Amino acid sequence: MEKKIITVSREFGSGGHSIGEAVAQRMGVPFYDNQLITEVARHSGLSEEFIRENEEYASHSNSFLYQLAMSAAGTYGYPSIYQKLYDAQAHVIQELADKGPCVIVGRCADFILREHRDCLHVFIHADMAHRAAHVLERYGATDKPVEQRLRDKDNRRRNYYRFYTDREWGICTNYHLALDSGLLGFDRCVELILLAAASGH
Amino acid sequence: MEKKIITVSREFGSGGHSIGEAVAQRMGVPFYDNQLITEVARHSGLSEEFIRENEEYASHSNSFLYQLAMSAAGTYGYPSIYQKLYDAQAHVIQELADKGPCVIVGRCADFILREHRDCLHVFIHADMAHRAAHVLERYGATDKPVEQRLRDKDNRRRNYYRFYTDREWGICTNYHLALDSGLLGFDRCVELILLAAASGH
Repeated sequence: MEKKIITVSREFGSGGHSIGEAVAQRMGVPFYDNQLITEVARHSGLSEEFIRENEEYASHSNSFLYQLAMSAAGTYGYPSIYQKLYDAQAHVIQELADKGPCVIVGRCADFILREHRDCLHVFIHADMAHRAAHVLERYGATDKPVEQRLRDKDNRRRNYYRFYTDREWGICTNYHLALDSGLLGFDRCVELILLAAASGH
Repeated sequence: MEKKIITVSREFGSGGHSIGEAVAQRMGVPFYDNQLITEVARHSGLSEEFIRENEEYASHSNSFLYQLAMSAAGTYGYPSIYQKLYDAQAHVIQELADKGPCVIVGRCADFILREHRDCLHVFIHADMAHRAAHVLERYGATDKPVEQRLRDKDNRRRNYYRFYTDREWGICTNYHLALDSGLLGFDRCVELILLAAASGH
């Protein structure tokens, strides 16, 4: 059965956004990455700014205050604002997948759509040198060393994923296809995803 | 640069052997899986029987006696027989890779050849149902439930890999390509590996 919904999880700077976008173009289907923010804002009532700052990066998930907020929310039986954001994202992702073929980047979409039979779940990663070069080219330099930026963002994604899915990020068995874009190159990754998605198995 | 040496790590029953063999045939290069045992015996002086029982499955690696043997060996500055087996395997794998294009299955080859620029490192996995069906078809039933056999063998491979490489088995970033053979099917996995290996990047 052909896989018409592609989820792309990715290390920061591995080119997951560009690769996912190219796959969507080649398949002629919608591409959702930051576009999801508007949808989630509409569904949740949360501001786009809050979503942008907190989606996928529950940066507080390691902090005492965040744990306290989550725990207090649990104690009093209502979801924290972070849980509300995650639930809204999950709802929007489910709706988009039910609507038809598309490519969705990040946001635990592989986990949220794990029971969806029409999906191909992809993970993109690369070595530090390739990712650093890509981030500098795409976002430019900042005061923080680029390696530190890579590590920080990956850690935040890893924590977020672990918190909401109870699974480990970047484990082969969570994905149908995992690719090293540093070795393979972005174009070859696109070809490999299209070939895997066309699986007649 | 085309990748001419393919290492295939695999969950038990995921078809890594069959897929690797088909890749080798298509590339017209030697295929090494159990064939390595004879080479390792010749190099190490260990018996083929001992190698077959202990290679890749340092089944004692969790036991007190094994730890004691390793520790005592370390204390007295000579390698244990298990370390000798691993070293012989590593030597043979390095030699084969230096000799020319080939496909090597298991035995930490991805780690042993991690600095070899000519390699494509592949991991093959599949869900329990596909693996159970494959194992029953290939090896038949035993007294032990097939799911238990799968878990036991994977755990032994995981322990062995962790012990000798200090890395975690089945983490995406250790491989250039990871494939779910249950979803993709063996033939499509072969195609994907050949396409990745032909990478002109």
